[in-house]
Amino acid sequence: MSMDKTILIRRETLEKFCTEAFEKAGLSPDDAGLSAKILVAADARGTHSHGTGRMMRYIKGLEGRMMLPDAKPETLHESPVSLTVDAHGAMGFPVSYRTMTKVIEKAEAVGMACASVRNSNHFGIAGFYAMMALEHDMIGVAMTNTAALGVPTFGRDVMFGTNPLAFCAPGDRERAFVLDMATTTVPRGKLEVYDRTGRALPSGWAVDASGHPATDAGKVLRDMLERRGGGILPLGGFGELCSGYKGYGLAVMVDILCAMLSGAPTGPDVFDPPGTSGRVSHFFAAIKIAAFTDPREFRRHMDELLAKLKNAPRAAGCDRIYVPGEKEFEKEEYNNRHGIPLDRKSYENLKLIAEKYRIGVPPQIPDPR
Amino acid sequence: MSMDKTILIRRETLEKFCTEAFEKAGLSPDDAGLSAKILVAADARGTHSHGTGRMMRYIKGLEGRMMLPDAKPETLHESPVSLTVDAHGAMGFPVSYRTMTKVIEKAEAVGMACASVRNSNHFGIAGFYAMMALEHDMIGVAMTNTAALGVPTFGRDVMFGTNPLAFCAPGDRERAFVLDMATTTVPRGKLEVYDRTGRALPSGWAVDASGHPATDAGKVLRDMLERRGGGILPLGGFGELCSGYKGYGLAVMVDILCAMLSGAPTGPDVFDPPGTSGRVSHFFAAIKIAAFTDPREFRRHMDELLAKLKNAPRAAGCDRIYVPGEKEFEKEEYNNRHGIPLDRKSYENLKLIAEKYRIGVPPQIPDPR
Repeated sequence: MSMDKTILIRRETLEKFCTEAFEKAGLSPDDAGLSAKILVAADARGTHSHGTGRMMRYIKGLEGRMMLPDAKPETLHESPVSLTVDAHGAMGFPVSYRTMTKVIEKAEAVGMACASVRNSNHFGIAGFYAMMALEHDMIGVAMTNTAALGVPTFGRDVMFGTNPLAFCAPGDRERAFVLDMATTTVPRGKLEVYDRTGRALPSGWAVDASGHPATDAGKVLRDMLERRGGGILPLGGFGELCSGYKGYGLAVMVDILCAMLSGAPTGPDVFDPPGTSGRVSHFFAAIKIAAFTDPREFRRHMDELLAKLKNAPRAAGCDRIYVPGEKEFEKEEYNNRHGIPLDRKSYENLKLIAEKYRIGVPPQIPDPR
Repeated sequence: MSMDKTILIRRETLEKFCTEAFEKAGLSPDDAGLSAKILVAADARGTHSHGTGRMMRYIKGLEGRMMLPDAKPETLHESPVSLTVDAHGAMGFPVSYRTMTKVIEKAEAVGMACASVRNSNHFGIAGFYAMMALEHDMIGVAMTNTAALGVPTFGRDVMFGTNPLAFCAPGDRERAFVLDMATTTVPRGKLEVYDRTGRALPSGWAVDASGHPATDAGKVLRDMLERRGGGILPLGGFGELCSGYKGYGLAVMVDILCAMLSGAPTGPDVFDPPGTSGRVSHFFAAIKIAAFTDPREFRRHMDELLAKLKNAPRAAGCDRIYVPGEKEFEKEEYNNRHGIPLDRKSYENLKLIAEKYRIGVPPQIPDPR
């Protein structure tokens, strides 16, 4: 996000606005509040691709019944350690939040638990749900499949999504370890940035419709949209030289846990047909640390490891070694104090939504700098 | 492995020989048999880096008490879904096999379970343990940390091991999905091959002692050995361009599950001091499919996904798209029929072991080609 065009809004104000808008679009107050909270958390943590820049898409999705505001998620199967849920096309945020809450309750009682959710919609940042486990002294895991845009090693058509995987573990005085990563090399948004700026794609990001390394971002995006072939490469890049088959394997692993366990479409069958929304699936897990070891000792050991990583000798010319999640925590702390930055286009969309529903536009606050 | 120098030995013969040798080195008959079985499975599946080419190292390790042949692994903590084990320096194979067996029993009873094992030694191929879950209609997971040789993004010193992660799920008529991958871009063995053949390292594999991309494999290996800096890059390669921080995060995730949960050394504290063996930690998990959905349906859906991946349109000039595990299954089927191929040096080592212990040298069989 280029900061010169940035609008700043207080986190609470933005959450309140999104809650109101979601209620107007048909969500119950609880569902609206949860959806707003998780969406705004993405902006707060600097993951704007998953934040309120998507509000218009969600509002249109709810009004067009691509996401069903009145869907009643159903538990298909339940045991002390497991949960299979059919979201029946509901909004992804509340069903994910409530499922992870139940997973944590089960893990509290038994030591660990997991859940697989089908027929859902985009759930925002995976890390949010994984991080719900932290305050319970648990390791948290969250995954989702997505509309297919990744090409397997030696292939030329999309066969899996960005399929992100989030994993977190609590520290003591150090902030938690929070890994939240797409299993493709990059998300679609990165290609869009290269397209807009006319830069050639780096090697290892994408292939063209013949399955060869692509440099033209715009062409890859158009070919993907029209399903002519080509797409994004898995983590590890093109071919076998830097082990692209590992990212491909991880993407399928996520698909198996999310969609195969819940009995949902997988791989290339997850896509967004025109005028509706492809149903995605999620997976959540929690592991209670006390089932293995003393949680205080675990957290102290985490502190030691995290400090070692952060203070490790740096490459010549590099300022800092980051621990997964650290950048996001720092952004969130800054944004909580100084306001959530939104780009002008996202803010204009919020104004359109405010106008449509006759609700107050969330006011800007001055930039402290 | 270059096939012109290959010695072929029947799988059963090789297993019997290794069992005898391990018994002579002090393992109980049961421990010797399990160790031999898992070591030979690596060769059978084509993962010779983890096979009987290491026999001499294990024999010396047992005799020098780097691995303790008489160690009695101890359960530190146990619940219906969890197990924390101290291997007390035992050979890695039998304690891993027995722990995964217990994890599967617990998952059979409760729906899922996992175990963290500390103070262990090299356990061979992670995939072996994960695959033990398949015949029970379970998803299997196995991980281990290893002596540090991976450098974090923006770093220049080793801070984590190759930390492999194995994940598998059963098919029906299709063979299982078996992902078994180091979370570094490549293992150390690949650098050794480039060193021997004098080739420049591909970009994204390793950094030198200043943390910059390295091309001289020999120098990287020597610098690592003498802990002067430099090492192997995580999956995703150098810097942030192709998301090397994801592989770095995955490596730490494996470390947390293996070593943090079991209260063992992590990161740079896992190393092989001269004359002894660094203790490594493992993690095992099993998820019972029936706790979520009908296993027959799951397996049929797996077949559909695996077939789709294998039959996906191929990149121009590429013959085949592989499913994770497929190459290894094909090698194993071939080798079970025609004999396990060993390189001459590994075979010479087996002969030295045979001589030392006055046991029969495993006989070669003729090459069918």
